[in-house]
Amino acid sequence: MKPGKFIGVGLGPGDPDLVTVRAARLISGASIIAYPALPQTESFARRIAAPYISGDTHEIVMEIPMSRQRAPAQAAYDHGAAQIAEALDLGETVIVLCEGDPFFYGSFMYLHARLCDRYEVEVVPGVTSVAASAARLQLPLAARNDVLATIPAPLPDHDIRKRIEMADSFAILKLGAHIGRVSALLDQLGLADRAQYIERATLDEEVVLPLSQAPDPAPYFSMILATKGADPWLKPPS
Amino acid sequence: MKPGKFIGVGLGPGDPDLVTVRAARLISGASIIAYPALPQTESFARRIAAPYISGDTHEIVMEIPMSRQRAPAQAAYDHGAAQIAEALDLGETVIVLCEGDPFFYGSFMYLHARLCDRYEVEVVPGVTSVAASAARLQLPLAARNDVLATIPAPLPDHDIRKRIEMADSFAILKLGAHIGRVSALLDQLGLADRAQYIERATLDEEVVLPLSQAPDPAPYFSMILATKGADPWLKPPS
Repeated sequence: MKPGKFIGVGLGPGDPDLVTVRAARLISGASIIAYPALPQTESFARRIAAPYISGDTHEIVMEIPMSRQRAPAQAAYDHGAAQIAEALDLGETVIVLCEGDPFFYGSFMYLHARLCDRYEVEVVPGVTSVAASAARLQLPLAARNDVLATIPAPLPDHDIRKRIEMADSFAILKLGAHIGRVSALLDQLGLADRAQYIERATLDEEVVLPLSQAPDPAPYFSMILATKGADPWLKPPS
Repeated sequence: MKPGKFIGVGLGPGDPDLVTVRAARLISGASIIAYPALPQTESFARRIAAPYISGDTHEIVMEIPMSRQRAPAQAAYDHGAAQIAEALDLGETVIVLCEGDPFFYGSFMYLHARLCDRYEVEVVPGVTSVAASAARLQLPLAARNDVLATIPAPLPDHDIRKRIEMADSFAILKLGAHIGRVSALLDQLGLADRAQYIERATLDEEVVLPLSQAPDPAPYFSMILATKGADPWLKPPS
């Protein structure tokens, strides 16, 4: 029997309207979907896709433990990949639901690594949280020869600083308990006033705040965005 | 009269299926759309949106001259913004069609700068060419604490080199006549074998090549993508 196709589908930042036409069609027609969920928590990916899921779709839920150790999560991906492989071997197409974009900080990458050598794979890109946050903040990210950097907050100060210094615009992700340290750094760099804080962009619960008023710790789905405004032509003509 | 709303709509990388549900709905219901076009050339933005445009939509075409001088293009944006403002003042909503994402190297930013102080604005984010190219190449871009940098090829060698050295994954855009210089640089950095070349991602005319076989000059809609593969957990388990 010809094995089924393994499809990773980006769902965008959260608003179901920001799912692509292709992703919506694939999900509506799916016989099997798979998605990650934290223990005892609604899957965010499934929440975004919910309007498109039909009643008779079989769902593979991959419970991913929260842990600083990597092995437990990797074991969960092993198990999820085995369940998906079983369906693929029966000739079924399996749609994996991915928050944002599958290859931009997505857990899909761990399934892809486990299955890409053995099965036909398709990846459907999605709107990233960075693009969505910029849209909500109405903050142009990159024009002309601007460099955009996406920087995870857990990196050491020195690394974050160097990357900010070399970028025209930057997004700082995975803030969590690091937000105070990152805010102090932006202050030192004279960029705190330009930096904007946004959480849960495009959802009903979206919050936008000046960086000085951002919560500490910050929730997982939050980021800081800033541009040094390198292109003078982007200023409104006076 | 209450002025209309000014909406910039990201259309994604090229395949009309990668337009978001929201963008498709806005375009289908639009009474006025506006978009840029190079002289004597089909507008790429309009081509992507075409399946969603209804027959009785009024179209504002902004012809943007190709020139190394910036003033002629800026004058064209002045003129386009004035046409859009005229419609907004009559209470009409105007949908601006944007390739990719409106705030990621998009000409929409120049209209936004001219109109954002005077009108209600919405920005609908889109799938970027970087996310789409990674999906087509099946190249994971960023996991865990990886830094992703998007770097325009016209920058000097020294600047490109420093930004590559500080990133885990990078996209080099706007290759054009710079592709030979950039390829030589990647060779020096020992990254040429990891770098992949893609043009017109997600379109029927898409081309994927090893960097050594890429055309010189490269077309405008092309990029080089590479990852240093920082996360060992992304390797398929052996």
